[in-house]
Amino acid sequence: MYALAVSDHIMIAHSFRGEVFGPAQQLHGATYGVEVEFRRAELDANGLVCDIGLALQVLREVLGALNYRNLDEVPELRGTNTTTEFIAGEIFRRVKLRVAQGAVGPGTAEALASMRVVLRESPVAWASFEGPLR
Amino acid sequence: MYALAVSDHIMIAHSFRGEVFGPAQQLHGATYGVEVEFRRAELDANGLVCDIGLALQVLREVLGALNYRNLDEVPELRGTNTTTEFIAGEIFRRVKLRVAQGAVGPGTAEALASMRVVLRESPVAWASFEGPLR
Amino acid sequence: MYALAVSDHIMIAHSFRGEVFGPAQQLHGATYGVEVEFRRAELDANGLVCDIGLALQVLREVLGALNYRNLDEVPELRGTNTTTEFIAGEIFRRVKLRVAQGAVGPGTAEALASMRVVLRESPVAWASFEGPLR
Amino acid sequence: MYALAVSDHIMIAHSFRGEVFGPAQQLHGATYGVEVEFRRAELDANGLVCDIGLALQVLREVLGALNYRNLDEVPELRGTNTTTEFIAGEIFRRVKLRVAQGAVGPGTAEALASMRVVLRESPVAWASFEGPLR
Amino acid sequence: MYALAVSDHIMIAHSFRGEVFGPAQQLHGATYGVEVEFRRAELDANGLVCDIGLALQVLREVLGALNYRNLDEVPELRGTNTTTEFIAGEIFRRVKLRVAQGAVGPGTAEALASMRVVLRESPVAWASFEGPLR
Amino acid sequence: MYALAVSDHIMIAHSFRGEVFGPAQQLHGATYGVEVEFRRAELDANGLVCDIGLALQVLREVLGALNYRNLDEVPELRGTNTTTEFIAGEIFRRVKLRVAQGAVGPGTAEALASMRVVLRESPVAWASFEGPLR
Repeated sequence: MYALAVSDHIMIAHSFRGEVFGPAQQLHGATYGVEVEFRRAELDANGLVCDIGLALQVLREVLGALNYRNLDEVPELRGTNTTTEFIAGEIFRRVKLRVAQGAVGPGTAEALASMRVVLRESPVAWASFEGPLR
Repeated sequence: MYALAVSDHIMIAHSFRGEVFGPAQQLHGATYGVEVEFRRAELDANGLVCDIGLALQVLREVLGALNYRNLDEVPELRGTNTTTEFIAGEIFRRVKLRVAQGAVGPGTAEALASMRVVLRESPVAWASFEGPLR
Repeated sequence: MYALAVSDHIMIAHSFRGEVFGPAQQLHGATYGVEVEFRRAELDANGLVCDIGLALQVLREVLGALNYRNLDEVPELRGTNTTTEFIAGEIFRRVKLRVAQGAVGPGTAEALASMRVVLRESPVAWASFEGPLR
Repeated sequence: MYALAVSDHIMIAHSFRGEVFGPAQQLHGATYGVEVEFRRAELDANGLVCDIGLALQVLREVLGALNYRNLDEVPELRGTNTTTEFIAGEIFRRVKLRVAQGAVGPGTAEALASMRVVLRESPVAWASFEGPLR
Repeated sequence: MYALAVSDHIMIAHSFRGEVFGPAQQLHGATYGVEVEFRRAELDANGLVCDIGLALQVLREVLGALNYRNLDEVPELRGTNTTTEFIAGEIFRRVKLRVAQGAVGPGTAEALASMRVVLRESPVAWASFEGPLR
Repeated sequence: MYALAVSDHIMIAHSFRGEVFGPAQQLHGATYGVEVEFRRAELDANGLVCDIGLALQVLREVLGALNYRNLDEVPELRGTNTTTEFIAGEIFRRVKLRVAQGAVGPGTAEALASMRVVLRESPVAWASFEGPLR
């Protein structure tokens, strides 16, 4: 299995609801280093998993909707605890949608087997979501 | 599949028996950067893989039994080559036991699918152990 | 010149005032990796720049006043643009005060020549403040 | 499952053919950080996945055939787009051959289950190839 | 003294002339992680060393003239050994010129005291150039 | 001022004497990532701070005398607290001696202005020593 991964980052504010979160119930924030890994069994005719320029562009576009925002006030995330693992899943779903629309290249969506999104929140913690693309 | 990982580190001394180890047969030491990754299919009601505070606490507790020690003289490790891969497995078994006792939160042990422990021993080498939690 | 440095991190929310900040005028946040480097010409009788345990404790204490907070609402920072470079300077001043009070060990304040605080805000940006301790 | 990984690096020149590559169609270059991860279900009698010294030696030997070269002029790669993902696969195949020849220790080839090769090409991109060894 | 640093990267090919370079006399290449650190004694009215967006833009623009190129064929570098330390100096000179032209903000050139450029060429080597801006 | 830096690592055991060291009074160990930075005002005729191959060789040779050792039993270190900052100074002195003997190239010793040695002992601590070479 081949994989190609690209990374970028976002800087967001948010707060959590539930005693389990302790001081993180207060409004605070995070820099998330975000990596998206695309996987397929065979390379395409150019020797690629996918067009790396398009992959970086799709990631930037998906992250652009969250960057420099207070996630507590992003309409579609309201009422959700935007934990690192949840946001990893959310970015997975948004990138998957764009891949299905052909945004990382014609014919690539059909060839990709699975994808993994990793969010690094601090020097001592990270979270991820991975799943099939087909 | 979602994952949440936390990290910490230990500083230990040890020596190895067997010609394959060359100069590492001498008493020497290592700083191990230690990562534990917890995995589950669905997030809990709070949007979590597990309580990150408890995960860090369990890791610190398990590492506390090894930190600042000469592993050659830790009774339960005597006579064992405490290679990086072996210690990864040993930490896996100890964290797994604490998870089963409910140490990362009530109901979490039942929901976790698998776990992976990574030990980074130098800029050019690391080892890991992963396995199911159920 | 000898140096010893310790690091920790904080997760904060804030916003900036001024058109130069573009989208960062919105409420957002950051994970800051924070490093404090202590410098002195000669080591003490134990072979140390300072007690590393105390250094980590002072750093944690100083960061504790900012961690998991919205800096826009921290009384002593109100009306200030809490840029990465400003916070580096602010942490410098707070650690310097604790050093002068003997918090990193008896006699150490007098022996330290200078200090540097680095804040890593993202994979592509960091800021620092350094100055003399005497 | 246990794993042991070692890393090294190479510095190469190359160019790509195909409009999808944009400016990378020009002759340019890369530093590739290269990691090889060996996996097996149980440790050997010494507590090892494999001899780490031999693993580093095999990696250095395989990389030596590519290091400080213009890949466009390496005979066996001529006419191939030497993308990061392709080179990850190529290094996998070359290391696999050496493992099968006993280069990471007697009896180890039979015990290893799978292998993964990762190439880090820049702070924002990496590629990998993984597959079974049996 | 305050500092703000931004980073980016380039991927280039080149070769060296002189026996001291050994195998690096062959055409090969490198990914250079590039950091530029701007320093000044006092922050501006916004609490900044300089506009971080403009700093990233100037760095990208300067690096754009070198990225995806064979440095042996860049007219103004012909006949020069483009060692990592030389390129660090060259990027310093080019960024310094843009700073003097006001590219990191009005009034900033006059306030900046010095600058440092770091190039990371591999996991085991980096080079830098630093000098005054006035 | 130009600089060139190279890095390598060692894995050692040691213990400390003095209550200030707490649990580190026990025999334990460390992986030290070691960086040596060489500085000079102007590059040589080849465009170099010094021969990077020789610099890596000198560093490996100096580290070879400490690697895989229990520092408590290295004759010339007996009775010394081999703290990270002390070892940084010790490596500085040993590399400086080799530089003066011409080990990083003919004429280079005279041209180098200063040197800095950094030891990274864990994800949260590092120490350094820097001084003039003339």
